[in-house]
Amino acid sequence: MNNAYSIADLRSRAQRRLPRVVFDYIDGAADQEITATQNVRAFAEIALLPHMLRPTPDCDTGVEIFSDRLAMPVLVTPTGFTGIVWPRGEAAVARAASAAGSVMVVSAASSLSMEEIAQSSPGPKWFQQFIYKDRGVTLDLAARAEAAGYKALVVTVDVPAPGKRFRDLRNGFTVPPSLTISSGLDMMRRFGWLRQMASQPRISFPNFEGYGSSGLLDIGEWLNGLIDPTVQWRDLEWLRQHWSGPLVIKGIMHPDDARLAIEVGVDAVMVSNHGGRQLDTEPATVEVLPRIVEAVDDRVPVIVDGGIRRGSDVLKCLALGARCCLIGRPYLWGLGAGGEAGVTRVFDILKDELARALAHGGWNSINQVSRRDIALRQAFPWPAGFDSEATSQGKQQGGAA
Amino acid sequence: MNNAYSIADLRSRAQRRLPRVVFDYIDGAADQEITATQNVRAFAEIALLPHMLRPTPDCDTGVEIFSDRLAMPVLVTPTGFTGIVWPRGEAAVARAASAAGSVMVVSAASSLSMEEIAQSSPGPKWFQQFIYKDRGVTLDLAARAEAAGYKALVVTVDVPAPGKRFRDLRNGFTVPPSLTISSGLDMMRRFGWLRQMASQPRISFPNFEGYGSSGLLDIGEWLNGLIDPTVQWRDLEWLRQHWSGPLVIKGIMHPDDARLAIEVGVDAVMVSNHGGRQLDTEPATVEVLPRIVEAVDDRVPVIVDGGIRRGSDVLKCLALGARCCLIGRPYLWGLGAGGEAGVTRVFDILKDELARALAHGGWNSINQVSRRDIALRQAFPWPAGFDSEATSQGKQQGGAA
Amino acid sequence: MNNAYSIADLRSRAQRRLPRVVFDYIDGAADQEITATQNVRAFAEIALLPHMLRPTPDCDTGVEIFSDRLAMPVLVTPTGFTGIVWPRGEAAVARAASAAGSVMVVSAASSLSMEEIAQSSPGPKWFQQFIYKDRGVTLDLAARAEAAGYKALVVTVDVPAPGKRFRDLRNGFTVPPSLTISSGLDMMRRFGWLRQMASQPRISFPNFEGYGSSGLLDIGEWLNGLIDPTVQWRDLEWLRQHWSGPLVIKGIMHPDDARLAIEVGVDAVMVSNHGGRQLDTEPATVEVLPRIVEAVDDRVPVIVDGGIRRGSDVLKCLALGARCCLIGRPYLWGLGAGGEAGVTRVFDILKDELARALAHGGWNSINQVSRRDIALRQAFPWPAGFDSEATSQGKQQGGAA
Amino acid sequence: MNNAYSIADLRSRAQRRLPRVVFDYIDGAADQEITATQNVRAFAEIALLPHMLRPTPDCDTGVEIFSDRLAMPVLVTPTGFTGIVWPRGEAAVARAASAAGSVMVVSAASSLSMEEIAQSSPGPKWFQQFIYKDRGVTLDLAARAEAAGYKALVVTVDVPAPGKRFRDLRNGFTVPPSLTISSGLDMMRRFGWLRQMASQPRISFPNFEGYGSSGLLDIGEWLNGLIDPTVQWRDLEWLRQHWSGPLVIKGIMHPDDARLAIEVGVDAVMVSNHGGRQLDTEPATVEVLPRIVEAVDDRVPVIVDGGIRRGSDVLKCLALGARCCLIGRPYLWGLGAGGEAGVTRVFDILKDELARALAHGGWNSINQVSRRDIALRQAFPWPAGFDSEATSQGKQQGGAA
Repeated sequence: MNNAYSIADLRSRAQRRLPRVVFDYIDGAADQEITATQNVRAFAEIALLPHMLRPTPDCDTGVEIFSDRLAMPVLVTPTGFTGIVWPRGEAAVARAASAAGSVMVVSAASSLSMEEIAQSSPGPKWFQQFIYKDRGVTLDLAARAEAAGYKALVVTVDVPAPGKRFRDLRNGFTVPPSLTISSGLDMMRRFGWLRQMASQPRISFPNFEGYGSSGLLDIGEWLNGLIDPTVQWRDLEWLRQHWSGPLVIKGIMHPDDARLAIEVGVDAVMVSNHGGRQLDTEPATVEVLPRIVEAVDDRVPVIVDGGIRRGSDVLKCLALGARCCLIGRPYLWGLGAGGEAGVTRVFDILKDELARALAHGGWNSINQVSRRDIALRQAFPWPAGFDSEATSQGKQQGGAA
Repeated sequence: MNNAYSIADLRSRAQRRLPRVVFDYIDGAADQEITATQNVRAFAEIALLPHMLRPTPDCDTGVEIFSDRLAMPVLVTPTGFTGIVWPRGEAAVARAASAAGSVMVVSAASSLSMEEIAQSSPGPKWFQQFIYKDRGVTLDLAARAEAAGYKALVVTVDVPAPGKRFRDLRNGFTVPPSLTISSGLDMMRRFGWLRQMASQPRISFPNFEGYGSSGLLDIGEWLNGLIDPTVQWRDLEWLRQHWSGPLVIKGIMHPDDARLAIEVGVDAVMVSNHGGRQLDTEPATVEVLPRIVEAVDDRVPVIVDGGIRRGSDVLKCLALGARCCLIGRPYLWGLGAGGEAGVTRVFDILKDELARALAHGGWNSINQVSRRDIALRQAFPWPAGFDSEATSQGKQQGGAA
Repeated sequence: MNNAYSIADLRSRAQRRLPRVVFDYIDGAADQEITATQNVRAFAEIALLPHMLRPTPDCDTGVEIFSDRLAMPVLVTPTGFTGIVWPRGEAAVARAASAAGSVMVVSAASSLSMEEIAQSSPGPKWFQQFIYKDRGVTLDLAARAEAAGYKALVVTVDVPAPGKRFRDLRNGFTVPPSLTISSGLDMMRRFGWLRQMASQPRISFPNFEGYGSSGLLDIGEWLNGLIDPTVQWRDLEWLRQHWSGPLVIKGIMHPDDARLAIEVGVDAVMVSNHGGRQLDTEPATVEVLPRIVEAVDDRVPVIVDGGIRRGSDVLKCLALGARCCLIGRPYLWGLGAGGEAGVTRVFDILKDELARALAHGGWNSINQVSRRDIALRQAFPWPAGFDSEATSQGKQQGGAA
Repeated sequence: MNNAYSIADLRSRAQRRLPRVVFDYIDGAADQEITATQNVRAFAEIALLPHMLRPTPDCDTGVEIFSDRLAMPVLVTPTGFTGIVWPRGEAAVARAASAAGSVMVVSAASSLSMEEIAQSSPGPKWFQQFIYKDRGVTLDLAARAEAAGYKALVVTVDVPAPGKRFRDLRNGFTVPPSLTISSGLDMMRRFGWLRQMASQPRISFPNFEGYGSSGLLDIGEWLNGLIDPTVQWRDLEWLRQHWSGPLVIKGIMHPDDARLAIEVGVDAVMVSNHGGRQLDTEPATVEVLPRIVEAVDDRVPVIVDGGIRRGSDVLKCLALGARCCLIGRPYLWGLGAGGEAGVTRVFDILKDELARALAHGGWNSINQVSRRDIALRQAFPWPAGFDSEATSQGKQQGGAA
């Protein structure tokens, strides 16, 4: 792993090691993948304005969230089906994240039970789930999460309908699976991955054991079907009443929704477009981030995922007002490239890059970085009259061109 | 057809199945094809701003126009020479459109008579024609259309001169045809298409039977010659007096023309640049759409064609103020790929994509989508002083940069 | 020639027929060729706003300049060394231009004498020269031009130093020539061109006969040396006093210079950056055109060359305020592709495209086209405070973004 | 060398002649090399506005700095490890720079002693160093530089941490070196370079002799370790008190830092992002140059390096307010292509291009070029409210869009 120098290097390795059908599942996105591409490209359009001769000998990359002190402001965003990338992948990710002083947000759709993952994760951990049609399942999962030591509950709200992902459709990575000859042959050529997969029990979703069907094919479809597509704000309010710990809403892309979420009583707003895997041509997350920060107005932390590939990207999220950010594809690439060692490498790379960026710019801690330290080459063009209610000062900051 | 997942997939199939000379005829455009390309690209520069936790269980994609309720706001724009793509192609399109709850706008230059197409189209249908030099022919066609059950009459006004299409010129798809050796050999290799074409009578334009020459080559040239290039607003006024049903003007790209059309008494304005097949470097239709909507000011519905390839594109047209939109190349690609089944697939794909986009964005019906739900990355730069007469509010919305 | 459908087609043919060293001489430009590329690309960023139902049955592409009525607003810009493209090339161009109702601007550095070219050019013609170190030569040429029937004198002012053209340097097209092995072998393969060149006397510059050295190599170098690099406005004033006919200044890129030229008494201002062959990263000519039109303020006609490749480009020049425009590379490509027939084809293509564009946009004559008929996607960013003296109305038109 | 016509040509030659590991070391930059690329591209977005008929017979490219008259406003920026490109490379550069009337800024990390380089440099010369952890070393070097005749001391302040350069990491150009098989084999194929290197003593850093370890591998690492990463403004103040000659601060990218530097008493501000080799996605140097010029407000000269590849680039730096500029990669490419002759060629090319650009634009001296002579296609978007303290006039100049 030591000669993987960037997240891009780890992506290349994962691509060589994983069957196309698996790699495309983690790498791909919805429709033309315009949003997924924009998530990444938007960072290149943000310029950093460094200061010299401001030494940063004790440069602090640490951040506090929900009374926990993290070693770096980079968390692990929840992803399902992770066991397909590496056997017992979630445990590997949990160990690497804990060791790095990060937080893993564990998906309910993990291939290991949340209790088992919790054992691999001595540090703080969060649990991510949906509001399911069956409200009993919904509360059961939350209760188990609390019992297993998960501090925060992350509720994903951006899957009222599944996304349309052409790579998966073409590869036959569907529910039920329908591998093409081409993707089947491709799978046969990935010996390392095949050997690993052959030696483990078939993939299942143990968090949902007892709630329904068994069998790989059925349970996948059944899992999708569990999610309640009619969830609304009052359902989040209901969940709020049943979860006393920190509650995070994941999938906010609109300042108005951020305001509503705070009224409901969430403890953090997570800006996310699901990695561009849902509605294509949504904005990049960093494009909407400044407006959401403005709307939230310091009442709760704002966190963000989408397109983060470098230490400087992390810095830019913070400069735009995020408390911390989360990575998705990067850790899956690391996992696919080399299991726990690969995920550890991801954290090492990002932490090193972040520390260098802070040192080069003369910021002694991530809290020092502000909107004045970056310039947006392409400000996102919100509709005219959009923020008529916002303060004039806010308008100026959001509307720089 | 089931493993064609997008309109782009259907285009690829049509390209494999059709002779180059036919594919290029439907796929190509005028000059450098800058306008045709821009029609499509302009949609990628429009970002959708989704709302979460607004369930859309009874999401309504239906729209009403001319008192007819359509299942989706996507109509079939008129195209000539369709019989060259699939034998009796217009009937196939009519059946698929009716089944999808759409409306086919039947071209006068169809290779089947309008009466025969009407029989394949139980739902609402419109008829498209020009104002011909021979005003008698003009009224005869309209009268026959009314008798055959066509509800609306669409008058195309953007062909004062034919467009210059390099692909057709290079392939020898001209009047008269002058196939090159290369395009002739290419045609010989498309067995499926050849067999179909061999088994049908030669292509003709039965709507014009009795008005002139017979013979494939002559009638094509003669058909072009029928169109009156000196038509002006008073001629449209004259036609208005002879057609009591809904009258649609097709080919409007200028707000001033939209205003004139309404003065003449049209019942709908169709924004179109003829798919970029006439004057190259015209704007994309969605670029001018907001200004035309502004000029029309809710007096009649505005409809639009050009570059629509995805469900989200449909949504963007509606957000910009269109009542509904029309597709051209997409259904011809579907037809070329698999006849009626291919056209049905086009409607299925667009309807599914549209429903997903509505669900992802939290819009319970297409009527809910408005200008505040989209952001224009590249607003079209109208000339300075262009809309000095427009309201200040209008200017702001049109001029966001 | 009939299956060359666009200027680009003629360029391809010229490229196949001419030795690389000759093709690159006419096709290439200075340095990175940024300005030459921008000259062309700028037109694609200008959108045409068409009007419908405005018939143009007697569409008039004619224009009047210096009391001559031209059939089309496209003139032939002067180029030297034309004899290297086609034997007696200037005569071929003169015949084609006259037949097309255009005007050829004959370069003093022609390989035929101005008198001989005049005989091939029954229509109006202009003569282009420099102010030479030897003021006697300067006046002699002008006097001969007047005697030979040239109506206007075009004085080029943008060659205070030769441009640096990498293609010529690499090909060895230098003074003296230093062909590389590669370009020599390439030349040997162009049989058609070789046979033509072998059958004609060596290339010379008969307009300068008697003034100096003979011999191809010497005279080229000597010719460059004739030009006075220290010419200033007072020298133009001096020439103005010795030439009673229309005087055109060629090479203006700055509004301030346009004002100075009018003070000196020129009869037309020609906006030109020498086809991007002098100072690279100058603006495109159509980018500066609106400001120069503004500065000239209708006192004399503004004409323009640079990047015109399509009929719609011509229209855009006129919409921006030019009286007419000139083509350079296009006619040289036509000449290289097929001699006089090729040049005739260039005029036919442009005239047909121009007429179609006028018809499609509903402009009954080129005089009808105005600034309100186009939208500039990328307005040229003049320095702040540049036009503080301009009227507010002017500023608005020039500064649309 | 005479048929290398541009800096790009010299780069190609260096690439052919040097081992990949060496070429990449001088050519590469940090991370995705976005800043390095932008340094170059930013110049293409600056357009030159030429004036005609302003003769420049005695065009003056000379500039005065620190009471020295230079023949051209292009200096040699300091680079370390130069001996790896050409044996005794610094001496070759010094001779070429002196002959060209330029100034070489000699790096402390040279492979020849500063005294030896001084002997090759009869003209004015400057010395570049860091503030080292050992303040004694720091002052010793400065004292030796003064004794050896170096006029100005350049202190680099933008290396609080080393940059992360993927090309070097992949090639194994690290401390200690870890050549890959691929880059080792590549090195074996560069015979010319190998022969040269074999015939010279191993590369060392004689300026630091006596201060530490010997041995190539150790000394490199040791050298990096010498630099004090905790340097702050008061350390610069301290150095200011110990150096009575002109003091230049190198690595300023922020107007605020420029103001601080002047308060400390520097005699010139050098805008530099270390060629994009430190913090990627910093702005290009010419993007921040106008703001820094504004902040400095004529109190000291502003000089700039980064991306200069053409004579017109030099002109643009001056138009933006720089007194002169420096080249880095260009002279290393020249050196790699042909030693001293290659560096001389670099100066010849730039001087010729600069003189032509001045002549073409009608500027009789470089002092005549101002902000009104250029247009910025893409102005750099500083954060809103950034320059609230700046004068309104200043804001207008900096904010042109």
